[in-house]
Amino acid sequence: MNTKFKARLYEIVFEADTRAGKIFDLTLLIAILLSIIFLMLESVKSINETYGTYLKIAEWVMTSIFTVEYFVRIYIVRRRYKYIFSFYGIIDLLSVLPLYVGFFVPGTHSLQVIRSFRLLRIFRILKLSRYVSESRAIITALAASKQKISVFFFFVITLVIILGTVMYMVENEASGFTSIPQSIYWAIVTLTTVGYGDIAPVSILGKFIASFVMILGYAVIAVPTGIVSSEFSNFKKYKKITTQVCPNCLAEGHDTNAVYCKFCGSRINDE
Amino acid sequence: MNTKFKARLYEIVFEADTRAGKIFDLTLLIAILLSIIFLMLESVKSINETYGTYLKIAEWVMTSIFTVEYFVRIYIVRRRYKYIFSFYGIIDLLSVLPLYVGFFVPGTHSLQVIRSFRLLRIFRILKLSRYVSESRAIITALAASKQKISVFFFFVITLVIILGTVMYMVENEASGFTSIPQSIYWAIVTLTTVGYGDIAPVSILGKFIASFVMILGYAVIAVPTGIVSSEFSNFKKYKKITTQVCPNCLAEGHDTNAVYCKFCGSRINDE
Amino acid sequence: MNTKFKARLYEIVFEADTRAGKIFDLTLLIAILLSIIFLMLESVKSINETYGTYLKIAEWVMTSIFTVEYFVRIYIVRRRYKYIFSFYGIIDLLSVLPLYVGFFVPGTHSLQVIRSFRLLRIFRILKLSRYVSESRAIITALAASKQKISVFFFFVITLVIILGTVMYMVENEASGFTSIPQSIYWAIVTLTTVGYGDIAPVSILGKFIASFVMILGYAVIAVPTGIVSSEFSNFKKYKKITTQVCPNCLAEGHDTNAVYCKFCGSRINDE
Amino acid sequence: MNTKFKARLYEIVFEADTRAGKIFDLTLLIAILLSIIFLMLESVKSINETYGTYLKIAEWVMTSIFTVEYFVRIYIVRRRYKYIFSFYGIIDLLSVLPLYVGFFVPGTHSLQVIRSFRLLRIFRILKLSRYVSESRAIITALAASKQKISVFFFFVITLVIILGTVMYMVENEASGFTSIPQSIYWAIVTLTTVGYGDIAPVSILGKFIASFVMILGYAVIAVPTGIVSSEFSNFKKYKKITTQVCPNCLAEGHDTNAVYCKFCGSRINDE
Repeated sequence: MNTKFKARLYEIVFEADTRAGKIFDLTLLIAILLSIIFLMLESVKSINETYGTYLKIAEWVMTSIFTVEYFVRIYIVRRRYKYIFSFYGIIDLLSVLPLYVGFFVPGTHSLQVIRSFRLLRIFRILKLSRYVSESRAIITALAASKQKISVFFFFVITLVIILGTVMYMVENEASGFTSIPQSIYWAIVTLTTVGYGDIAPVSILGKFIASFVMILGYAVIAVPTGIVSSEFSNFKKYKKITTQVCPNCLAEGHDTNAVYCKFCGSRINDE
Repeated sequence: MNTKFKARLYEIVFEADTRAGKIFDLTLLIAILLSIIFLMLESVKSINETYGTYLKIAEWVMTSIFTVEYFVRIYIVRRRYKYIFSFYGIIDLLSVLPLYVGFFVPGTHSLQVIRSFRLLRIFRILKLSRYVSESRAIITALAASKQKISVFFFFVITLVIILGTVMYMVENEASGFTSIPQSIYWAIVTLTTVGYGDIAPVSILGKFIASFVMILGYAVIAVPTGIVSSEFSNFKKYKKITTQVCPNCLAEGHDTNAVYCKFCGSRINDE
Repeated sequence: MNTKFKARLYEIVFEADTRAGKIFDLTLLIAILLSIIFLMLESVKSINETYGTYLKIAEWVMTSIFTVEYFVRIYIVRRRYKYIFSFYGIIDLLSVLPLYVGFFVPGTHSLQVIRSFRLLRIFRILKLSRYVSESRAIITALAASKQKISVFFFFVITLVIILGTVMYMVENEASGFTSIPQSIYWAIVTLTTVGYGDIAPVSILGKFIASFVMILGYAVIAVPTGIVSSEFSNFKKYKKITTQVCPNCLAEGHDTNAVYCKFCGSRINDE
Repeated sequence: MNTKFKARLYEIVFEADTRAGKIFDLTLLIAILLSIIFLMLESVKSINETYGTYLKIAEWVMTSIFTVEYFVRIYIVRRRYKYIFSFYGIIDLLSVLPLYVGFFVPGTHSLQVIRSFRLLRIFRILKLSRYVSESRAIITALAASKQKISVFFFFVITLVIILGTVMYMVENEASGFTSIPQSIYWAIVTLTTVGYGDIAPVSILGKFIASFVMILGYAVIAVPTGIVSSEFSNFKKYKKITTQVCPNCLAEGHDTNAVYCKFCGSRINDE
């Protein structure tokens, strides 16, 4: 096979700048979505009893296509090991493997759901539209507040450990607070205002502390919201980025005006 | 019927700038509200057994009025097809149709509730008041963040698919995680902090993952709030102090609700 | 009784600028708090059986004191009718009346809880501290967003009517959606992410719509938060206000530099 | 023991600026974390039955280490009383005491969980990293809004007292509203959108008021979020682009993670 054809295939399979590349990615996304829906339906007992065979066949067809796609990707990419051990390379492998492994180790077949992660490729297509700057804005805002949110989560975890233990000591075992981990689970359910109600305090002191936890949750929920809000507010216009992938090191996120990859120094666009 | 009368009627029925137009729209809104209340009450068994006949009659009267109104609207509007196929035109038709269709196809009568959408006409009346700039502010803020919110919702949907499937694999069927769609439903209930408690994890690993989902929900809820907040912040705010100068002592800086000068006690506004 | 004594009493009872006035207000607040705690404890069966008599006596003593206080207030205020029909005047009357009415109409005695509203007087004392500008900031921010929030609530109410009715048509009666008002109640419980779980969808379509409602709730909750956040952000330094009450028209909220009441033009401070 | 050794030990134990100090603090944190995990596991019945003896031994070893550490701290610190009566000094004592007290007063052994507070020492280590400015940002934002949040919480408490009492009068005892404190607990559960569902209104009027409380909770939750958000917005943000100039083509505006110039492909940083 000549190099030009390989380069053309590379453009279609790995990039989304050309018309053919876009169509390929969209088709792939629909196929992934369908295979996920089939997997979902298979898990519903009543449907599985009636259409189980058809879903089984569909599953095999889909996985075969994804297997072929996986080997094509390996064939056409320049730096193979880089792709194979990249995030998407591993996901691509893990989304086809469980079916074959299922022959030898039964019960692992459900693991194919890991291909849901492949749906994240949609952001590659979206990158071409005006959605790119928006999704980048969200990611940048979250990335900028990463450290603040880490500090916050550490604080929340310390808080629920202490609150959970206090509730374990205060509350009766009969009301569901059977152990400290269980009580910490309750503290998380309450502080995040989820409130299943499977574990709820019954003693007066327990209810008093629970009330305190809930009102505290009010103040606590304000913190991540405040952090993210302020990041969005601080937000200036962002540079447009291209969907171009570096042919040498596979890095993404290059500026539209970039000629050389900023990570490995090799040329991005040859023409 | 002469054109002048038609134009006058148009002004009353379709617009809300004149006194008559406002009264018409208000009357209509009250009628719609009443008919919705009647429909609600009809659905309550105990009330339906006692007052069913009266409610049935009221429903017929109301729908007749709305039918007449619909035909009047068609008659007086200049560009008929435009109205008939407009959002409000379709809603107007759909809010009277179910009662007549109910003769031939039983059980469709409840569909009249679609007339609730007609209540949105209230924004027409509000447009005339100072509420207009406020409602426009909300719509503009939401419209401006439309793309960011789309990206966010796509992300949330991917997230709940993956989380739901993981929980299906981890959790026992006995605890309610009977299928993947059911588990995804649980993931949505938990991530949005609704937490019905009809499905709740019982295994230790399940509770651990659930805790992770809840704390994640904390960070996730911060995103749409942050987006909308920052949009609202982009709006300017209005002055709160009047430019009125005291005619006696020439002091400035009076509140908008001030009647007398706060420095010398003399009246600020003479009329 | 001479006028000077009356003026001195007025300063103590109605204002909180002087030391004596502060002590009076604080004592009153503690008395109100105690009487509310007594009322609460009386409602707990086990406590009422043991200490019922003491609580009854305490209730009578407290209410007698508040009755005397009410008449003193009427006696010393310059414009009696203004006070009697003011917000606090009515609350003051309503917090003592139920006990006396209880003689003739049994069961109304619990209505004394209305005196909880008297606790709002704490803001008068707080006005003297640095808390005043803060509480004003909150009130101003909420007042400024009053119209936006009104529009938003109208929208939410329309939304829950439509969503509730749709769920009533979709869901089985057995799952708790017995009538349209009941279903609207469910829609509110879900949209606000409270999620009691007393009513929860069981059908697949019902769960699908419920998922939609929950994710919608995510976006919807962002709106009031965004509105209030932006108001707080827009917020400049606020003028300090005094706790001085106009001796003529009883209006509050005068600027610290005000010499005359801005509503009626009469002098505020005589010295 | 000479002073130099004491000073060196002080640097390791009390500070986290040196390598040795950091290692000590990290080891201590891991030990605290382990001892908390052991305490948690001990509270789980099934684990306690099997591994109870080992956990008991581990607990003794850990507490012995912490006891030695406590006395070392007292020995090496210059101002002993200052440390003993400081926040961390008291926590350090309280985290070892319960085990010894447990000999004389049984059942107090669980109180050792108080050592969870020692985990807050992690902020000492974090102080050295870039997390310091972030955690300080959160603390400053919360401290700045302390008064606003106090006013807000006072308002919320007044609100739940009134709402709880109203619900107690409106609702049937059978639905869980057995006393006023119980009803206030329900009001907190509902207003904070936790919604356990252990107490839920059953009467129509009760559901109507509950709906009002929930929608109110919507507006109320906006207040602390708005307060904290606006405080965070007051902070400036950091630059994301490096000032590095390409040594080859002199281009500017490189990302901080760039290694090669994106315009000419030459290396930006030579070392």
